[in-house]
Amino acid sequence: MDFHATPIFPRGFKCASRNCGLKPQAKDLALFVSDIDAASAAVFTRNQFPGAPVVLGRETIRGGSLRAIVANSKYSNVATGPEGLESARRMAAAAAEEVGSEASRVLVSSTGVIGVRLPIETIEAGIVGMSRDLVPDPLVGAEGIMTTDTYAKALSVSVPNSRATITWVAKGSGMIEPNMATMLVYIFTDAELDAASLDRALRDAVHVSFNMLSVDTDTSTSDTCAILANGLAGPIDMRAFAAALTAGCIRMTEMLARDGEGAEHLIRAAVRGAANEDEARRVAKSLVNSPLVKTMVHGADPNVGRLLMAVGKCVDVRIDPSRTDASINGHQVVRGGRRLDFDDAVVRSTLAAERVDLEVSLGVGDGSATAYGCDLTKGYVEENAAYYSS
Amino acid sequence: MDFHATPIFPRGFKCASRNCGLKPQAKDLALFVSDIDAASAAVFTRNQFPGAPVVLGRETIRGGSLRAIVANSKYSNVATGPEGLESARRMAAAAAEEVGSEASRVLVSSTGVIGVRLPIETIEAGIVGMSRDLVPDPLVGAEGIMTTDTYAKALSVSVPNSRATITWVAKGSGMIEPNMATMLVYIFTDAELDAASLDRALRDAVHVSFNMLSVDTDTSTSDTCAILANGLAGPIDMRAFAAALTAGCIRMTEMLARDGEGAEHLIRAAVRGAANEDEARRVAKSLVNSPLVKTMVHGADPNVGRLLMAVGKCVDVRIDPSRTDASINGHQVVRGGRRLDFDDAVVRSTLAAERVDLEVSLGVGDGSATAYGCDLTKGYVEENAAYYSS
Repeated sequence: MDFHATPIFPRGFKCASRNCGLKPQAKDLALFVSDIDAASAAVFTRNQFPGAPVVLGRETIRGGSLRAIVANSKYSNVATGPEGLESARRMAAAAAEEVGSEASRVLVSSTGVIGVRLPIETIEAGIVGMSRDLVPDPLVGAEGIMTTDTYAKALSVSVPNSRATITWVAKGSGMIEPNMATMLVYIFTDAELDAASLDRALRDAVHVSFNMLSVDTDTSTSDTCAILANGLAGPIDMRAFAAALTAGCIRMTEMLARDGEGAEHLIRAAVRGAANEDEARRVAKSLVNSPLVKTMVHGADPNVGRLLMAVGKCVDVRIDPSRTDASINGHQVVRGGRRLDFDDAVVRSTLAAERVDLEVSLGVGDGSATAYGCDLTKGYVEENAAYYSS
Repeated sequence: MDFHATPIFPRGFKCASRNCGLKPQAKDLALFVSDIDAASAAVFTRNQFPGAPVVLGRETIRGGSLRAIVANSKYSNVATGPEGLESARRMAAAAAEEVGSEASRVLVSSTGVIGVRLPIETIEAGIVGMSRDLVPDPLVGAEGIMTTDTYAKALSVSVPNSRATITWVAKGSGMIEPNMATMLVYIFTDAELDAASLDRALRDAVHVSFNMLSVDTDTSTSDTCAILANGLAGPIDMRAFAAALTAGCIRMTEMLARDGEGAEHLIRAAVRGAANEDEARRVAKSLVNSPLVKTMVHGADPNVGRLLMAVGKCVDVRIDPSRTDASINGHQVVRGGRRLDFDDAVVRSTLAAERVDLEVSLGVGDGSATAYGCDLTKGYVEENAAYYSS
């Protein structure tokens, strides 16, 4: 899939972002708007302490139609009680008024520290006038939702054999695991689809992308991935659309993994030959979640026994040590459960690459899956030992 | 339970340790011997790539009787194929010859790097003459099995209303999670018990202690916890014995957690009011395993929303946010799922203590459990980014 060199928006989408005073200087508020109501779908965190915006978002998305998304960074509006939910509703109402729509067609997100009251008055005042700042540059919106991300993340692609474009705007960084992440991903397209088709396509794409991402095993209380299709480019071939959607979700997953807090490497763990897909997913996740595998990559130290350890600790997965093979960036290091006598210097140098591909073949079936993660560094510890006070 | 100020051995147990040449200078070989055959039981790692000593150990312990334990550090003899199993058998035979017993009564352990051939000739030569070095000091044996432990770990206690003593010798440090750890724990007692009673008592004690320990979620391929009862102190009251055994296992669990790689704090996560014990265990484990909770403790930063995040990410556990309370070292910080307006400075200062007690009450049932872990520090990353080459 060829992504555009510079991300663009599909027809009829614009965004704005600004500093409204939640952070000292950096942008902390973003608004995304479609010229017309867009068929919409969304998936949210499975964490049982969802933030107020997630509670409201589940209600909003049932309508299947959105005009706008409003999001703030710095405070997540989680563990804030009934007052938090009221603040989320006020945020939706303020954005609806600004763009000339209804609160029921505005998705709200908040990301940042948990358990602090949302300064809703500051946000309401900040939203006023944002519609005058709307520009067709997705990176402008991406800037407004950053927390510990090191750069603003957006991506776009043309859907083959159509006039349609799909565009991703996202933030990630820490507290990222399965079933979504401290992850906000907004997907915009001018393809024409109904909400039900969009929902299916989104769930399928998320299953193999964002739900296979883990920075640190911690599942955020705010995760949201929403898609808006305003139809301005007309109908598309569903298969081509689904393929482009999945490719872009995987590409964005890699960007989020690589930019995990403190990360210096993207780790892709591909598992083949598992008894079924579910077992392949569990082993792949175990690999990218293992602190000892993560520090091995960080140290570019081919202590390959750790790969076997991380596979073997999946106690309920069917594994036959004598059929287990493993490779690092294409160099086979384990065959039949035994460490091969590989060239240490070669594997060490390949581990220094920005992207590290771990491949494990279990030899017991046809299940396969790929998980996405990053190395564990002192930078992660540093950022998270002092996140709240900073 | 009053542990002895200086650990001692029960009647009839001795040990020796030495450097046999696996490490440059530090001790790398330990031998534990009972004067007479001892009723024995053991539990091993559930990792599906068990080391050769674990494979052999499962076979040996079926006999229910041990005379000696021989253990080396530096190499774990894991992922070494049939030759590795042969090496483990030779190690048992060499120790049996040295102490005048049979290989079937010698438990073997190896701990250290995975996937490297065990230098069995070096170990065999090292074992010769060790019986002349035997001393009644458990710390001498503890020294021989250390890897990244910062100190040798032993503990002893008198069983109330009896002449019996129980003594623990252990190593831990990293790659430590549930279902055992990179953990070798040897327990010696002169109480008189049969192998079946011993097995039951050991499993009960391990269930609430070592199996609730997690340094880094990674489950070692070598974990072994064995108990030897030589009967020299005569029969004991089983209830008093079980209580002392459990208390010592929990105390040793705390010592291992506190000395986790790079750790500066012991974290104890006590969960009450869960729907059942299993759910309480999962939530307690989630708390001690969460990198964001671990870094919160490391940074002494009361970002208490992370506690709710770690509870809520247990997606299959029954949780009612409006009934969820949480405390840090006795200071309530969450009530009914909402962050309380607590005194930040007070909680911050209490987080600086060496032992941090997290308490979560779920309010949905009677299940309770406690898990043991440690903070996540740059020291952990440093040790594990360069473990293999060092």
